[in-house]
Amino acid sequence: MTASQHDFSRWIEQGFRDAPFVADLGIALEDLGPGWCEATLALARRHMQQHGVVHAGVLSTMADHCAGAAATTTLAEGEAVMTIEFKINLLRAARGESLRCRAQVLKPGKTFAVVESEVFASAGGKEDLVAKLTATLAVLRTK
Amino acid sequence: MTASQHDFSRWIEQGFRDAPFVADLGIALEDLGPGWCEATLALARRHMQQHGVVHAGVLSTMADHCAGAAATTTLAEGEAVMTIEFKINLLRAARGESLRCRAQVLKPGKTFAVVESEVFASAGGKEDLVAKLTATLAVLRTK
Amino acid sequence: MTASQHDFSRWIEQGFRDAPFVADLGIALEDLGPGWCEATLALARRHMQQHGVVHAGVLSTMADHCAGAAATTTLAEGEAVMTIEFKINLLRAARGESLRCRAQVLKPGKTFAVVESEVFASAGGKEDLVAKLTATLAVLRTK
Amino acid sequence: MTASQHDFSRWIEQGFRDAPFVADLGIALEDLGPGWCEATLALARRHMQQHGVVHAGVLSTMADHCAGAAATTTLAEGEAVMTIEFKINLLRAARGESLRCRAQVLKPGKTFAVVESEVFASAGGKEDLVAKLTATLAVLRTK
Repeated sequence: MTASQHDFSRWIEQGFRDAPFVADLGIALEDLGPGWCEATLALARRHMQQHGVVHAGVLSTMADHCAGAAATTTLAEGEAVMTIEFKINLLRAARGESLRCRAQVLKPGKTFAVVESEVFASAGGKEDLVAKLTATLAVLRTK
Repeated sequence: MTASQHDFSRWIEQGFRDAPFVADLGIALEDLGPGWCEATLALARRHMQQHGVVHAGVLSTMADHCAGAAATTTLAEGEAVMTIEFKINLLRAARGESLRCRAQVLKPGKTFAVVESEVFASAGGKEDLVAKLTATLAVLRTK
Repeated sequence: MTASQHDFSRWIEQGFRDAPFVADLGIALEDLGPGWCEATLALARRHMQQHGVVHAGVLSTMADHCAGAAATTTLAEGEAVMTIEFKINLLRAARGESLRCRAQVLKPGKTFAVVESEVFASAGGKEDLVAKLTATLAVLRTK
Repeated sequence: MTASQHDFSRWIEQGFRDAPFVADLGIALEDLGPGWCEATLALARRHMQQHGVVHAGVLSTMADHCAGAAATTTLAEGEAVMTIEFKINLLRAARGESLRCRAQVLKPGKTFAVVESEVFASAGGKEDLVAKLTATLAVLRTK
């Protein structure tokens, strides 16, 4: 791991703690590496919609935030990413004790990156793919 | 307004109050009519990502929930909708005191409906379009 | 109309004639103005899929090409656009004598633009909205 | 292979030959199995846009048609699929001698299926991923 990658790792960890909406929801960074990132969320009643399944907004928040983190691992120093659009397919009703999200960069780039995130719901020890997101992120020069 | 439309109106109002994630975020139904729905959200620090702008997950939650409500106004009795996918374009950084969302049905249907939602951010009396969502919803028979 | 806009108009007209795939399909520029573009296509058997309706690929080609043309009307000299992603909702089976597409810029920009295209099918004097596309285009410096 | 699967195989082969737009473009079925389908296209000048790269409409047509074929392999007798929406990310300029597309069902279903297609461009013996599509298809009862 280079010094630059180490910095990204710390920056991403801080992003999960410092982004108020992500921290408030309880989404926690699990692990990351070059081009990928994983996060988890212990589900509570507040994450639900009226029918007792996880609200699509929770799945979107988790999948989008992980996509940004995964893209960040591919950046050079002085760069940052910002999601400009995403599409999410809600494949199954999401129920259970927890969610896990894995984001993987499909195409890194100097001006745009494309990232895919998969969200899995764990119920009684069984994990099901419940949503898949594809995001386009703009790469910005911050200095 | 027919009895059936009246019921939908009450059902949708209840949906905003009873969906824990929507109520917890503070998203409130403003108004609705045949094929459309509007909601508002007073912004607080907890809705933000680390750079002080509203998290894309908040915009997605609001736009998706309003899309569901707008589609619900076009249903027959015994039907309900469930979002199967959406795409959102994040057009500008969302800042300000509040958000307003207007969802409009583009195509009602017996098996699926397509709805568009626009989210506006209000800052100092000026309103800007910050996000646009297009959602596909499955129409389900509940009885 | 400034000299620059006049040039874009000529450049766009040429794009419809010189893009082999667009010219081969028969898609023709109808009209354009600041932020918008319209094109038409007389339907033939070759545009169909096996069930006698227009292939989604034809609708996508027309909607994407018009989106690029609409975005081009908002550029400064020395800039060009390139579609980086689009989403299309196929709202109704497309049948009839001809298609008309209208593309409208939702958000112009220095690095990316967002454009919406609507495709209408004409059958027996009646026009129906059959598809809606939302595209993100990168703005490139060509000089 | 059951009788039913055999029928789907023949039906899909026929679909590539009988869909006028697909046959006219030169898109050919290469292989298929449960939940997947591959097709190829020898590139010619007519598939290009004005800058000498393959038009996004060609990539979309190929990726959408393969998605439909892949979904068809998962159907029961008396069912057919129809694309209701797709999103495509154009990852790199597509150039070379030929395209190859592989479609894979992400989620089969009784009313909706979700399929992903990847398109690769071959140039000088080297293959690059140039586009990725995600489609939602409605499952229809034909009898």
